[in-house]
Amino acid sequence: MNGQLGAWTVGRVAELVGGTVVGDASTAVSGLDGIDTAEAGDLVFAESSRYLEAGLKSRATGVITTPELAISSEKPIVLVDQPRLAFLKLLEAFAGNTHHETGVDPSAVVHPDVVLGAGVYIGPLVSVESGSYIADGAALMAGVHVGKGCTIDEDTTLFPNVVLYAGVTIGKRCLIHAGTVIGSDGFGYVPVGASLKKVPHIGTVRIEDDVEIGANCCIDRAKTAETVIGAGTKLDNLVHVAHNVKIGKSCLLVSQVGIAGSTTLGHGVILAGQVGVADHVNIGDGAQVGAQSGIRYDIPAGAAYFGSPAVPLTRRMKEISIRNKLPETLKEFRQMQKRIAELESQVERLLNSIPAEQVSEEPDSLAGD
Amino acid sequence: MNGQLGAWTVGRVAELVGGTVVGDASTAVSGLDGIDTAEAGDLVFAESSRYLEAGLKSRATGVITTPELAISSEKPIVLVDQPRLAFLKLLEAFAGNTHHETGVDPSAVVHPDVVLGAGVYIGPLVSVESGSYIADGAALMAGVHVGKGCTIDEDTTLFPNVVLYAGVTIGKRCLIHAGTVIGSDGFGYVPVGASLKKVPHIGTVRIEDDVEIGANCCIDRAKTAETVIGAGTKLDNLVHVAHNVKIGKSCLLVSQVGIAGSTTLGHGVILAGQVGVADHVNIGDGAQVGAQSGIRYDIPAGAAYFGSPAVPLTRRMKEISIRNKLPETLKEFRQMQKRIAELESQVERLLNSIPAEQVSEEPDSLAGD
Amino acid sequence: MNGQLGAWTVGRVAELVGGTVVGDASTAVSGLDGIDTAEAGDLVFAESSRYLEAGLKSRATGVITTPELAISSEKPIVLVDQPRLAFLKLLEAFAGNTHHETGVDPSAVVHPDVVLGAGVYIGPLVSVESGSYIADGAALMAGVHVGKGCTIDEDTTLFPNVVLYAGVTIGKRCLIHAGTVIGSDGFGYVPVGASLKKVPHIGTVRIEDDVEIGANCCIDRAKTAETVIGAGTKLDNLVHVAHNVKIGKSCLLVSQVGIAGSTTLGHGVILAGQVGVADHVNIGDGAQVGAQSGIRYDIPAGAAYFGSPAVPLTRRMKEISIRNKLPETLKEFRQMQKRIAELESQVERLLNSIPAEQVSEEPDSLAGD
Repeated sequence: MNGQLGAWTVGRVAELVGGTVVGDASTAVSGLDGIDTAEAGDLVFAESSRYLEAGLKSRATGVITTPELAISSEKPIVLVDQPRLAFLKLLEAFAGNTHHETGVDPSAVVHPDVVLGAGVYIGPLVSVESGSYIADGAALMAGVHVGKGCTIDEDTTLFPNVVLYAGVTIGKRCLIHAGTVIGSDGFGYVPVGASLKKVPHIGTVRIEDDVEIGANCCIDRAKTAETVIGAGTKLDNLVHVAHNVKIGKSCLLVSQVGIAGSTTLGHGVILAGQVGVADHVNIGDGAQVGAQSGIRYDIPAGAAYFGSPAVPLTRRMKEISIRNKLPETLKEFRQMQKRIAELESQVERLLNSIPAEQVSEEPDSLAGD
Repeated sequence: MNGQLGAWTVGRVAELVGGTVVGDASTAVSGLDGIDTAEAGDLVFAESSRYLEAGLKSRATGVITTPELAISSEKPIVLVDQPRLAFLKLLEAFAGNTHHETGVDPSAVVHPDVVLGAGVYIGPLVSVESGSYIADGAALMAGVHVGKGCTIDEDTTLFPNVVLYAGVTIGKRCLIHAGTVIGSDGFGYVPVGASLKKVPHIGTVRIEDDVEIGANCCIDRAKTAETVIGAGTKLDNLVHVAHNVKIGKSCLLVSQVGIAGSTTLGHGVILAGQVGVADHVNIGDGAQVGAQSGIRYDIPAGAAYFGSPAVPLTRRMKEISIRNKLPETLKEFRQMQKRIAELESQVERLLNSIPAEQVSEEPDSLAGD
Repeated sequence: MNGQLGAWTVGRVAELVGGTVVGDASTAVSGLDGIDTAEAGDLVFAESSRYLEAGLKSRATGVITTPELAISSEKPIVLVDQPRLAFLKLLEAFAGNTHHETGVDPSAVVHPDVVLGAGVYIGPLVSVESGSYIADGAALMAGVHVGKGCTIDEDTTLFPNVVLYAGVTIGKRCLIHAGTVIGSDGFGYVPVGASLKKVPHIGTVRIEDDVEIGANCCIDRAKTAETVIGAGTKLDNLVHVAHNVKIGKSCLLVSQVGIAGSTTLGHGVILAGQVGVADHVNIGDGAQVGAQSGIRYDIPAGAAYFGSPAVPLTRRMKEISIRNKLPETLKEFRQMQKRIAELESQVERLLNSIPAEQVSEEPDSLAGD
């Protein structure tokens, strides 16, 4: 696949999307990405002059934009009427043939009552228990286990060794990466005398459409009702989502994030790597939380938080700046203490040097205090 | 199962446990939990008036208590002579039929010398190596691997794709969730010249009775002797327990906790989410550590610690309160510097204004310093 | 195996390596380790008087050193001409017979075009897809999945349920522990209108020789080109390595470390437990980072960093020391405020007590400000 990609150039990209090149059409292209995360070799797209400027300043090798925004640049630019559609077409072309095989490997163990849609792939050594439904175009790769009564909707792929406990529902076009476990019991115990008795977890997990979940994640089933991951949300590797958590649409949870029970995330929330969120917290739409932060209380929509415990980002940045100067500040503080002691000594000498009857009892300025 | 539960009401609960209802017997009940973690729909139990009060204030829908504590409340109360026993009976009823299937799936690969007890279940695509012993009532679900010479005691369940390396021992009535790995080598290397040579890990892991371990956890084998997880202890998902760690009884380790080599936890220790504990640390019985804390030094029994590095909780809360006011405190500090400079200026003017011979050399109050 | 080791004594060790014993040759020996991490029962080795001294002060039971360094000690010492070679010989002896079985288990599903070297072991329920190459002496234990076109070089072991996505390359003598996933897609999305479109990840992962990776780790494939883990590097459990990360040789990444995309580590870098490193960061050769630190900016070679966000270790230790005294410092600060108010009051009284014309307008010492 890499060999084939080695042949991509800005010129070939322009040809594919029906565009024209400003600059060196022979420039090699190796990938596609967003402006913020692009690397050398990548093409990005821009629908406004602001983004075009950002794209040209980014690590990207070239930018796809509209003819009316055309400017001259050291980087090659592809001009096309609808840059967004062109970019989507290119994403597909670069990803290559992602169609999976179809059919059921003879080593798979599929309960006879399982319903398999058209074009399904059941890989080697997969097991699917009774009452499950695998919709058209879904793929269960090697070693996947699907418990009783699960539903896997159209065109969803479970990568090798994914485990679904009983009763889990996965939407359309989801990608669940290897080793991820969905539907294990939530972490709940009642102290009864000296021992901890397990709380029944009789709810389930529902993953909506177009969700991608990284490798070795854990999504616990609800105590009752559902743990939910909203449509279009993406989880990185090793993320923990506890029982009864509700995550909205189009959120991004970076690797090693952990979310405790019954917490709710709105839509478009971004949690950076290793963030921890306590139980029963509400995080508003579009909120963003910096890496390694610890969230104990609700966060309003649109807010940016950072720190453990987390506070608003601007506040935290000020704190960090103060923290970084603490050693110097403490030196100043010790000097101030000396200066005050010196002042006290001087003032005492002054007071001693002036006849007591001459010193006013109470200064005017403090009279009203 | 949910359908069946939809039919539960406070009245039906009272009937099952032989109790009577104060309040609306038709109130729907969906689950059971402890007072601290209960949600709407849950019943909790209380054996004292203090807990009854807490239960009525909690998110729970109703409380099970004794006739002598009966009070009137907006929430329905179930009166029964032994609320604790009633609650245990209900836990069983709500969890439903948790009896697993029995027998060995024909796709499993079980070494001929493996001893299988009565009522054992070996699921599809399980492999069990030579010399292992699977006691009565144990269940190995799909894709589990059991290495050479392991012991899995009565009524223990290994969920799908659990891996036991050779020589691991698991007690009775344990639940080990999907993807968890027990017995992998500890992380130990000796620098020998320019390279890192692997330290032999020839010890093992012993999990005592009634332990529950979440999904995708890692419990490393000891260098020599044993890594131990004590009876009744519960681990959440993605927890790391290093070689030679000893964990006492009835501890709670929340998700993504990591414990480094040779550290010891007493009984009843609670580590909140994402806590890290360094190597060779001793944590006393009943100690509690707040989320994301980092433990480098021993913690005494019963203590509450928080922070990275962790300090006693009350101390940490004071620090956080101080930290949260740092920007304001720094402003005050800068004002103080100005006030001191102003004072110095004024005092200098005063000193200059008084004939030198008139000012005493040394103030009386500092004479003894 | 433990029974056999129970028979090891300092005397037997000396015999095996052709050395002589100073002290009690009957002392029992249970393991081998480095001086910093040794436990009671371990032997360590020392090639200089400084290390000999450290070894005798350590938890180790005895030290292997050279005849010219011989001193008397309460701990037994084994004298041998080449302590390092003796130690390597002992490591092998203690690890015991680590040779794996050979042959292909009949339950494995191996594509007919897969090339298997001599002495390969393919365990039960393993699947290997088309185009892969398993070199001499490699072992794929139960439940391993190897995707299309992977290369696993000589004498490498994949422990149970390891998953390699297509196109991954693993070097010689590597140990990849159970449940680890190598080659899953990196975490990359382009916002296109309201939705997040997946960035194609068409690169791969290359693991060099003598790498050990713990259990349930995740190593993502590159967007283009390669994610690389350098020769001799060791990863603990539950470590996340994102797309396009380059890790140098002989690094140590302790458990639950997470490294974001396109970050580069030099050689001999040590990241302690739960460290997080942001994307596009460069960490120089030999840098060391303390537990739970968060790295946002480059770290120079040889530096020690600590904290979240991380700063140089000595600076951080000073900050922690200041932080630990903040409550007391704040008390002093409040006292200072009172002392200043008192001074201001006194100075005002002084100023009021002296005829205005007597007080100089501007003190000499501040005249130049």
